[in-house]
Amino acid sequence: MKNIILCTLVLILVSACNTPPQKKDVKESVANTTVTDPLPSWNEGAKKQAIIDFVTKTTKEGNADFVPVTDRIACFDNDGTLWTEMPLPFQLFFVIDQIKAMAPKHPEWKNAQPYKGILEGDLKAALAGGEKALGEMLMTTHAGMTTDEFDKSVKEWMATATHPKTGRHYNEMVYQPMLELLDYLRANQYKTFIVSGGGIDFIRVWAEQAYGIPPYQVVGSSVKVKYDTTGTQPVFIKLAELNFFDDKLGKPVGIHEHIGKRPVFTAGNTDGDYGMLQYTSTGNGPRFGMIVHHTDSLREYAYDRKSRLAKLDKGLDDAGKYHWVIVDMKNDWKKVYPFDN
Amino acid sequence: MKNIILCTLVLILVSACNTPPQKKDVKESVANTTVTDPLPSWNEGAKKQAIIDFVTKTTKEGNADFVPVTDRIACFDNDGTLWTEMPLPFQLFFVIDQIKAMAPKHPEWKNAQPYKGILEGDLKAALAGGEKALGEMLMTTHAGMTTDEFDKSVKEWMATATHPKTGRHYNEMVYQPMLELLDYLRANQYKTFIVSGGGIDFIRVWAEQAYGIPPYQVVGSSVKVKYDTTGTQPVFIKLAELNFFDDKLGKPVGIHEHIGKRPVFTAGNTDGDYGMLQYTSTGNGPRFGMIVHHTDSLREYAYDRKSRLAKLDKGLDDAGKYHWVIVDMKNDWKKVYPFDN
Repeated sequence: MKNIILCTLVLILVSACNTPPQKKDVKESVANTTVTDPLPSWNEGAKKQAIIDFVTKTTKEGNADFVPVTDRIACFDNDGTLWTEMPLPFQLFFVIDQIKAMAPKHPEWKNAQPYKGILEGDLKAALAGGEKALGEMLMTTHAGMTTDEFDKSVKEWMATATHPKTGRHYNEMVYQPMLELLDYLRANQYKTFIVSGGGIDFIRVWAEQAYGIPPYQVVGSSVKVKYDTTGTQPVFIKLAELNFFDDKLGKPVGIHEHIGKRPVFTAGNTDGDYGMLQYTSTGNGPRFGMIVHHTDSLREYAYDRKSRLAKLDKGLDDAGKYHWVIVDMKNDWKKVYPFDN
Repeated sequence: MKNIILCTLVLILVSACNTPPQKKDVKESVANTTVTDPLPSWNEGAKKQAIIDFVTKTTKEGNADFVPVTDRIACFDNDGTLWTEMPLPFQLFFVIDQIKAMAPKHPEWKNAQPYKGILEGDLKAALAGGEKALGEMLMTTHAGMTTDEFDKSVKEWMATATHPKTGRHYNEMVYQPMLELLDYLRANQYKTFIVSGGGIDFIRVWAEQAYGIPPYQVVGSSVKVKYDTTGTQPVFIKLAELNFFDDKLGKPVGIHEHIGKRPVFTAGNTDGDYGMLQYTSTGNGPRFGMIVHHTDSLREYAYDRKSRLAKLDKGLDDAGKYHWVIVDMKNDWKKVYPFDN
């Protein structure tokens, strides 16, 4: 079966390579009609058209579905919706790399899980302790320092660490079609927010450069911080205590707390996003819910109902009920990453 | 002493009445120079000039103190900084009015403090129970309902309740000079945020209309909410459990959590704002800290070091150290409210 899929994919890719370059087509159409395609990396079809129709009708004054500028709120999950989340969510690679970097000062880690597993490259052993082990590693690497020190460590990691499959820096592995969608929404006076289960402090460091989304439009999980004035300069100290877990039913709560308005447009990719998609789509008036379906094992990764890390199951079941648009990565996206040909 | 102050005030007011109307002057200057005064309700002088100089130098490319657009964060306390907070913070009037409205369904309140005091108009008796009594009244009126129900009650109250001294609706008692300052900062691509000890859900209902500040730029105190999907529509239920107290050292923490950037410009009026003013002014590069000093017992209220409700003491002591600009309401503001002549 796998061979058939692979062959099919190869055929698709070969046929794609034989297609005249799209860039030229777009330019020509621009010259003729002076209308620029806002979503050049999206294949023509129902999904792309649904996005354009929605943005058009909600921003055209006089239209029954017109949405005032102040209500144009668009929310995006991050892992698997704006950037890749396989073979592990990237923040976990950060955790692993930080533990390795901190290890010389912690000789006791050589004999204690979950650290032992990390240092020996045995992730399975490290994660055998389940949520408790993961929580301990998160707190070790995300608490006990100032926010400035943490920001610096994320910045340095992002500039140096590379993805095991592509060899690219993690912040290069953002989805080109989604960058275009963010730009398109903003050009139509939508405010774009990240609503992620990942760490808010982690994402804020690089999201403005990667997505054009400023820190105050990032909602995420957090530890408590303390404003400390005992030193020469006031600092925030990250405490080893969970403040907010922005996943599943936490996502609509995070939206309420940070944004205070129901989104008009929401995109996610797993059942962790079900709550915020449901909250969006049960509002009155026009709403757009989008699920990025990972169907492209060649250009990215393919996973859904059976994934342990990023399950999409209930979201697929209820997509019809809530009119969610399922974006098929393989068929709907011309390219995945900005660096793709 | 009081008589002398009163006589001085009367003299100032009379002399102000004899001054030719400023509006005409401004218009003439506009006709001659095509430069509109961005702060027409501020008297000419050091304070107004300090604001204009700061905004000019931080927004002029090439200036050593230029601040990139993405870093232009301005934070404002609400009670006593953007609107009046006397004789009680307005949210407390809401609490009192809500308890009165809810009383028919709670006959037991007739004999139990703090409700008894409220119903009998004896605020002192109601508040004799201190923080516990206040906390109980806050939870009674701010929890146990959906966020939609709460929003509706605030909207209705704002449209009907009036201030005991001016007879005006509470959202009319915003400071005209501060509205101009908000507009001026926004015209120079500053993002304006409210950072209030008051309830975030309470403020969000009317702040967009009153100040042009959208819900996602409001930081405030909150109760926990639960995303509830048991009914026909998902709702948020406000729980009787404190989520975040955005006052004193909570203010810089609230700024970190919601905004994620250090403000460049911050305005407050009591020691409750000391933390966020200090956090602002200890940052590198140009920073502006402003304290609205309530010196005008005639047009508004006069209070500072000895106020029980809104003490400004440490802020006055340390203003020099941090270069905070003390705005003298009586002398620096031409008018207080938009409805003033």
